[in-house]
Amino acid sequence: MPTKSTRSVFFISDGTGITAETLGHSLLAQFPDCHFKQVRMPFVDTADKVRDCVRQIREAAASQNVRPIVVSTLVDQEIVAVLRQADAFFLDLFDKYIAPLEAELGTKSTHTVGRFHGIAESEDYKARIEAINFALAHDDGQSNEKLAESDVILVGVSRSGKTPTSLYLAMQFGVKAANYPLIPEDFERNKLPADLVRYRTKLYGLTITPERLSEIRRERRPNSRYAALDNCRNEIDAAQKLMRREGIPFIESTSRSIEEISAKILHEIRISRTGY
Amino acid sequence: MPTKSTRSVFFISDGTGITAETLGHSLLAQFPDCHFKQVRMPFVDTADKVRDCVRQIREAAASQNVRPIVVSTLVDQEIVAVLRQADAFFLDLFDKYIAPLEAELGTKSTHTVGRFHGIAESEDYKARIEAINFALAHDDGQSNEKLAESDVILVGVSRSGKTPTSLYLAMQFGVKAANYPLIPEDFERNKLPADLVRYRTKLYGLTITPERLSEIRRERRPNSRYAALDNCRNEIDAAQKLMRREGIPFIESTSRSIEEISAKILHEIRISRTGY
Repeated sequence: MPTKSTRSVFFISDGTGITAETLGHSLLAQFPDCHFKQVRMPFVDTADKVRDCVRQIREAAASQNVRPIVVSTLVDQEIVAVLRQADAFFLDLFDKYIAPLEAELGTKSTHTVGRFHGIAESEDYKARIEAINFALAHDDGQSNEKLAESDVILVGVSRSGKTPTSLYLAMQFGVKAANYPLIPEDFERNKLPADLVRYRTKLYGLTITPERLSEIRRERRPNSRYAALDNCRNEIDAAQKLMRREGIPFIESTSRSIEEISAKILHEIRISRTGY
Repeated sequence: MPTKSTRSVFFISDGTGITAETLGHSLLAQFPDCHFKQVRMPFVDTADKVRDCVRQIREAAASQNVRPIVVSTLVDQEIVAVLRQADAFFLDLFDKYIAPLEAELGTKSTHTVGRFHGIAESEDYKARIEAINFALAHDDGQSNEKLAESDVILVGVSRSGKTPTSLYLAMQFGVKAANYPLIPEDFERNKLPADLVRYRTKLYGLTITPERLSEIRRERRPNSRYAALDNCRNEIDAAQKLMRREGIPFIESTSRSIEEISAKILHEIRISRTGY
């Protein structure tokens, strides 16, 4: 029987801690039967701060009666040495990877503090911020001024997941994603919105089950025709028919996260990213 | 002298590849003198697909005359075995971490495919999507209907970075971040916007250098009073004075990424995240 007792996991970093967390989440997700209490400790860059970490790790060990797990991305070896005084199971990113990489590349690492330090000046970062602004300006068909600049235009019925997906594509990948709703008028005319016809090769559809769509829409407008299950079913059927006829690829969003949807879209349209 | 020749880095995953990329970026950032060509290969979950990876790795090695680096998060050991036929420098996440974790936890990992699989049903994921919708509904002071529900309300002059930061806080951390502009009328009255007074403890300010603000505003409205350097300087001075007087903590956004700004805000306000 897997244990259901709680074990603390500390994400310790001298920077934002985002790398340690991302790494840690992907590892812990492999052990769904265990129960973890996650504690984020970013900006641990002095002896005082790391001693505070050690104290908290000891307290967690004492109260849970099991040694905590520590996922760390610290680079300062003096701080690491203090941290190691705690009795914990250590997963140290730099320890395991940086040293071998230095040997392979034949050069020393800068041991810079944290992943994002200095990134705000990079071209990649600026492209991501520009893409976020683009996604906001071209959300829900509110502007078609610069659709020609888009890398992809997401289409689908209202509340099928277009907005968060377009924001994620922008934020994570610097992809300029517009989104455009398919509405009952389009289905009556049985045609793509006129603004989109010339950009057909940029279109990518999202679809969703009628049950889930109805649930989401009810949260927004309870007891409405808009949210009624039969109406949702009709809209989705019509949207899928339209997308098939127009040769627009589409993906089911119901049980997928925006990360999965975005990665799949990116993979399929093979947008070539430059720089960074 | 560090080499400036190009070396390919492959991010290979049976899922979205986002974990492999995040991990890889943080490692490569330690070697700014090296030039890397990054290739993303997600959804590598069949023998055919991994053989295609091997072929591309060999081609890169031949054309660059150096063995590529492979950052992988594959869990299927048969697929890993095929990948290992390529001559590359392997950084394998699961190899280095999953096996030791299994020993520590006394249980087998599920070897699920990818980090995000099944996440769409989790409470954490739903909270993140809800937070994104909240950030969009409460962007730029456009609604104050549910400000009481916010975890934080970002304030600052127009174009100081509030919108992308609030979206990042939502997307990465599930934090409900509203944002509200400080405008010339507020400075003339020398008072906080009336809507915000009752939420003073939730306020967090962003500031920026006048030079950078003027640059950003010129992109939006060239040759305007709005973008003029002296006007930007006056607005920023007045905003900082107002924030200091009201006891609102604030952070300089000029040379920081939204990841850094968000992590710092989160750290300082110590929002307690639950679940996941």
